[in-house]
Amino acid sequence: MAEQIAKNARDAFTVLKTLSNEERNEALKAVHDALAQTKQEILTANKEDMANATKANLSSSLVKRLDLSKGDKFDVMLQGVLDVASLEDPVGKVTLARQLDEGLDLYRVSAPVGVLLIIFESRPEVIANITALAIKSGNSAILKGGKESLHTFTAMANVVNEALSHTKVPRNAIQLIESREDVAQLLDQDQYIDLVIPRGSNQLVRNIKSNTKIPVLGHADGICSIYVDKDADLQMAAKVVLDAKTNYPAGCNAVEQLLIHRSLASKTLEVVQLLLESNVTLHVTQQVASHLPESELIVPAVDGDFDKEFLSFDIAVDFTDDVDSAIKHINEHSSGHTESIITENRETAEKFLKAIDSSGVYWNASTRFADGFRYGFGTEVGISTNKIHARGPVGLEGLVIYQYQIRGHGQVVGDYLGGGGSREFIHKDIDIRGVTL
Amino acid sequence: MAEQIAKNARDAFTVLKTLSNEERNEALKAVHDALAQTKQEILTANKEDMANATKANLSSSLVKRLDLSKGDKFDVMLQGVLDVASLEDPVGKVTLARQLDEGLDLYRVSAPVGVLLIIFESRPEVIANITALAIKSGNSAILKGGKESLHTFTAMANVVNEALSHTKVPRNAIQLIESREDVAQLLDQDQYIDLVIPRGSNQLVRNIKSNTKIPVLGHADGICSIYVDKDADLQMAAKVVLDAKTNYPAGCNAVEQLLIHRSLASKTLEVVQLLLESNVTLHVTQQVASHLPESELIVPAVDGDFDKEFLSFDIAVDFTDDVDSAIKHINEHSSGHTESIITENRETAEKFLKAIDSSGVYWNASTRFADGFRYGFGTEVGISTNKIHARGPVGLEGLVIYQYQIRGHGQVVGDYLGGGGSREFIHKDIDIRGVTL
Repeated sequence: MAEQIAKNARDAFTVLKTLSNEERNEALKAVHDALAQTKQEILTANKEDMANATKANLSSSLVKRLDLSKGDKFDVMLQGVLDVASLEDPVGKVTLARQLDEGLDLYRVSAPVGVLLIIFESRPEVIANITALAIKSGNSAILKGGKESLHTFTAMANVVNEALSHTKVPRNAIQLIESREDVAQLLDQDQYIDLVIPRGSNQLVRNIKSNTKIPVLGHADGICSIYVDKDADLQMAAKVVLDAKTNYPAGCNAVEQLLIHRSLASKTLEVVQLLLESNVTLHVTQQVASHLPESELIVPAVDGDFDKEFLSFDIAVDFTDDVDSAIKHINEHSSGHTESIITENRETAEKFLKAIDSSGVYWNASTRFADGFRYGFGTEVGISTNKIHARGPVGLEGLVIYQYQIRGHGQVVGDYLGGGGSREFIHKDIDIRGVTL
Repeated sequence: MAEQIAKNARDAFTVLKTLSNEERNEALKAVHDALAQTKQEILTANKEDMANATKANLSSSLVKRLDLSKGDKFDVMLQGVLDVASLEDPVGKVTLARQLDEGLDLYRVSAPVGVLLIIFESRPEVIANITALAIKSGNSAILKGGKESLHTFTAMANVVNEALSHTKVPRNAIQLIESREDVAQLLDQDQYIDLVIPRGSNQLVRNIKSNTKIPVLGHADGICSIYVDKDADLQMAAKVVLDAKTNYPAGCNAVEQLLIHRSLASKTLEVVQLLLESNVTLHVTQQVASHLPESELIVPAVDGDFDKEFLSFDIAVDFTDDVDSAIKHINEHSSGHTESIITENRETAEKFLKAIDSSGVYWNASTRFADGFRYGFGTEVGISTNKIHARGPVGLEGLVIYQYQIRGHGQVVGDYLGGGGSREFIHKDIDIRGVTL
């Protein structure tokens, strides 16, 4: 069963890969129109899921995420499909062109990755979002939603597949599956599936990473740090830390640890005052505590507090000797997501930017800027803490890779140096701005 | 033990990452000089390995690969270190620059991946090669060689580490380990190791892929194909196929299957004549056989011949109905390495180039061109059949990824649309040619 689903996705991909940007966009338009026309039907199915969720006593935040009828959520979802269609085609971009010899040219051309497996939790609008991203980038996708959104999911799946069946995009380019068992089996289909993208809790991502040989694009943790340097503008530091912690504490780009240069010890309260006023609990080392007044918001840091994603109004705070020890601490304790230094000293900042190994390294800005929308990517596939392929906020370019094309006239390696012959390669770069294939 | 090795590599990386191109090049120069000065010592150790290999009745091809004193191999190895040093710095390149707002700029900057684990078989010159590539790209590397090269390996390891200890590159940036047990444990260190690069047999690569959660850069198989279209220049086809098969049959870019358009059935012999003259055995379907004379070089294809990497003077041959069926066959049976179409028809060629999913897609050229040297990459880390990060011949850029830098003036997300405020992002691209950070 899982193997057949994966094989069908692969077969659909071989067709999808050959379609033009216009053909892919037409399919997105068809999906958009079909979802718009069946809005009531889908919302009825969605109400059923919500009723079941309420009956099952699921958390109110989960029920809220399930709700497609809330505000303009459905229309925003629809507009998102059209927005993706209007983005520049990520496929077929020439990123390298080189004349190897007379009449023998090499091109590196962007191409879809292949078959994606997307596993997500309760948000049903992800279906439209991922359908749009996958088709736009020429990838097949297998989508697996959470069981709490089963009815919404089934309704939308039928609409999407029916809509696609009237376009050049094969129906199987987007497959939606339901049962939990299928996922385990799909994670074994490394022969057909090229990339797994989990969208959900850290627990979900970690489970998936441990159970598949297929590459996984995602982030398990977002343990972000801010280092307040001795040359920091303290007012700026206080404001940035406040934003990074409280703007959206559940976000993976929220700050979880604050390191303050030891020379600022006597000014610690200046840095954390706004946090305390916003009812953030500070988990502090003893040294930090000795420079702060007593407060129920100031508690002793315990083991693991500096390796913890609080995702709440909590932050770990310590002193550090200098920028080098801050860098060392961060490279050891952060999750490689996003770290920020607050300083007016350019040299110190450059050192930090150069030495930190995380996907986002900021100077005088809130870690909360780590986001595809804020980076201007148009849309976001997710945020990655991987060290290869794609890091940080991932736009459509995370769903493409490249192929090397050679266009020749019957040349053979045996004629060239290194292959037995005497002909030399030219290896002359061609300006890619002038290339259309 | 393995954990300590991996942790040491990670610690060394945090220093290595901050070094300038000049500092990394100086270390390469030191390694080069030290290897040059200890040439006799290393060759003596190498002779010991060769004697042991001969005693142990290892295959002559393996003994040959072990031999560092053959011809100018040692000097080529030394020159290779300097060549890598002279390449453009792969680190710190700005590949995206965008003004997010006044005084808030985003940069995407190339950065080393981190810690590499390189596992290779008999060729001891790989030590110098990988040391150079890793240091040049700012990565730490843990190298594990085959036990048959133990003495050479130990001698070179001592020289490399001693040389590094007088440079800014930490000694532990390059660690050479010997025992087989360590590898299994190292493959578990996904906390510290970012990328595994196996250089050796398909068996080696497959074993490693099955035994680690760390991403693996490599190719398990090279099942390359050539499709001879109805509009092919048959003389060209015969010449290209001959080169692709016989120039170096043990290479992963050698052709293993030949598909001929059915309309050329009566001209089959023209296409394969040169192969037969070169003593290549054709594994043919019954239909193909019926168009060829009897010969001991023409044998019936058996199950699996079209999914096989012969790596020898053997090739599987079949007819196919048209370019579409050739594409379908190749997308199903090739290993995603390199495929070539021989045709004078541009439309057919473009269809092939667009539809084939392999890392190399060629028009009128031998598959043997799939090689870092021939592509003009200066050096080659290996060839990858992965679908993400790096495909095909991988140069230094396969060892780097990127980081996002934000340089601001204390901006916070809460002031902007989407974060609770009303400020809009500018999102204006900056010409990267003018950017120096």
